[in-house]
Amino acid sequence: MTEPLPAGATIGILGGGQLGRMLSVAAGRLGYRTHVFDPAADGPAAQLAHRATTAAYDDTAALEAFAARVDVVTFEFENVPATALEVVAGQRPIRPGPRALEISQDRLAEKRFLAGLGLATAPFAPVDGPGDIAAALGQVGAPALLKTRRFGYDGKGQARIEAAADSEAAWSAIGAAPAIAEALLDFRFEASVIAARGLTGEVVCYDPGRNEHADGILRRSTVPAPLDTARRTDAALLAGKVLNALDYVGVMGIELFVTAQGLVVNEIAPRVHNSGHWTQQGCAVDQFEQHVRAIAGWPLGDGTRHCDVEMENLVGTDIDRLPEIARDPAAAIHLYGKAEARPGRKMGHVNRIRAR
Amino acid sequence: MTEPLPAGATIGILGGGQLGRMLSVAAGRLGYRTHVFDPAADGPAAQLAHRATTAAYDDTAALEAFAARVDVVTFEFENVPATALEVVAGQRPIRPGPRALEISQDRLAEKRFLAGLGLATAPFAPVDGPGDIAAALGQVGAPALLKTRRFGYDGKGQARIEAAADSEAAWSAIGAAPAIAEALLDFRFEASVIAARGLTGEVVCYDPGRNEHADGILRRSTVPAPLDTARRTDAALLAGKVLNALDYVGVMGIELFVTAQGLVVNEIAPRVHNSGHWTQQGCAVDQFEQHVRAIAGWPLGDGTRHCDVEMENLVGTDIDRLPEIARDPAAAIHLYGKAEARPGRKMGHVNRIRAR
Repeated sequence: MTEPLPAGATIGILGGGQLGRMLSVAAGRLGYRTHVFDPAADGPAAQLAHRATTAAYDDTAALEAFAARVDVVTFEFENVPATALEVVAGQRPIRPGPRALEISQDRLAEKRFLAGLGLATAPFAPVDGPGDIAAALGQVGAPALLKTRRFGYDGKGQARIEAAADSEAAWSAIGAAPAIAEALLDFRFEASVIAARGLTGEVVCYDPGRNEHADGILRRSTVPAPLDTARRTDAALLAGKVLNALDYVGVMGIELFVTAQGLVVNEIAPRVHNSGHWTQQGCAVDQFEQHVRAIAGWPLGDGTRHCDVEMENLVGTDIDRLPEIARDPAAAIHLYGKAEARPGRKMGHVNRIRAR
Repeated sequence: MTEPLPAGATIGILGGGQLGRMLSVAAGRLGYRTHVFDPAADGPAAQLAHRATTAAYDDTAALEAFAARVDVVTFEFENVPATALEVVAGQRPIRPGPRALEISQDRLAEKRFLAGLGLATAPFAPVDGPGDIAAALGQVGAPALLKTRRFGYDGKGQARIEAAADSEAAWSAIGAAPAIAEALLDFRFEASVIAARGLTGEVVCYDPGRNEHADGILRRSTVPAPLDTARRTDAALLAGKVLNALDYVGVMGIELFVTAQGLVVNEIAPRVHNSGHWTQQGCAVDQFEQHVRAIAGWPLGDGTRHCDVEMENLVGTDIDRLPEIARDPAAAIHLYGKAEARPGRKMGHVNRIRAR
């Protein structure tokens, strides 16, 4: 058994958004310091970190100086360039390891990885140009979704294709980049499971939540999701399979479609996840602390949920409802310190505590 | 109705210990920045604040520069010198106002203030020298406690007097400083109520907790305290009376003795309070956020407790039990980032979530 990271050690965080902010607070709660690396100055995480580096991900000297000042490195978003990780990995442990990031950065690799584990995914086919789309639709059925392999998030880089005639339009809509065609599933609802794996291999899952999206952005997660015991067990088992296969260390968000035939894995996010914010009010150890525990070599929290929670994202002008939300006795408010409420921008979230 | 402090504004905090640290995190959660002023560098609060000034409380230039950079000022411990507050008050609002601080800095003024409100206190008498002790014992009874009027905390500056013959010894034990003699009460247990008053005068109380001390230091708060409805109402009413009388803005901790005759007020602390740490796991809005809400002009949270909590302070070498505590599924751990575990030093606390 490895010794945990000593008190006062510094955790490096690649990425400076709200997930990094909440990781930084959780690290502080366990007696650690954080150092945030992000191309933008004074972002949500830098505001609550002990130290911040503002530099581009291709600034090797800045990355090396960052790595030299920290004890272990993690990341808060999956589009950190692999080259940046390579620089850091030469000096410090990166948890989770780069393999989970590589897989989650490429939808095709991700689907093949999941299918290779025997997990259900939506039928998919690679699309390297508009000419591939007709054949892909033949394979996965129509209508389908065309999704870029890389750099998609919050519904960006996606287009719906009704028929092969839409090929050119869909291809240009997603920015003419390598893609996959993915079958549109008939699902009852979307869910996610937040799971963690510790440095010594133990796996812990939080209760799955039901997710609602609008314009491709998560709006609400309700926990517990309306799943029977068998499905809840399925969720935990598939999460364990994914984490073990990757020799993963840290928290992962796994998005699921709940269908009549069972759980279908939509995608994996090798980081703390928006749909896990409810754990801040629902559990003794939330997902942010769980991630810090994992990468710092602590025993994991057991994930017990002590109340029901409904998490609502405050997106764009949702923030104007703050005075009303602040008067709701059940509402725990979490704001991200972003100055300007642009459309689609996540400004904060609210966890509403519900009766058990 | 005043407008709340705008998002991105900076809250100045006088004092840089663990209370300031947790206030800073709560301020960040509501979208504010913090600037900590403390004579010691890199203390618990400075580690999680946006900015820190390291300077003495009599450094007028540093206090003025601090005030110039913040929008509102609060304090996290009651021994901030009045002169420091005067400097700051010339430039920025201080919440709560200096009057509560003045009263709580002087045990005699505090007792007279409480008695003046018609609240029950332990019988007390001023002691300005060892020659006053015999008469004071005649007034309050023996045995009694001799307590310095100023700068007492965590049981420091106190001595027990069995009889007038102990006068000289007790006087020198407390450091030969102006004091009060206070009757030793026969109480069932100690309790406290954490209350808040908003900028517009509304008062909110959390459920009282039962407190256990060792060596003058709080070790454990258990919520709810075993009080009947009438006593819980008494606690809320007396808290409201104290807060209103001071035109108070912010959170206050009020320590009580629970006696067969009812609640007796021990002392008031014009700040967030160690015995209110349980609210971090028990309520949607914890005492730290409540304080920030009050001083920033937000509506207060309503204090609803959604689970039972037992708070244990980790004092000195208690921190060595951390590996075991980290394995308790009900334990939410809060560490203060202090490097060295000296005897009597508060290193952190644990909130254990109990069944409702």
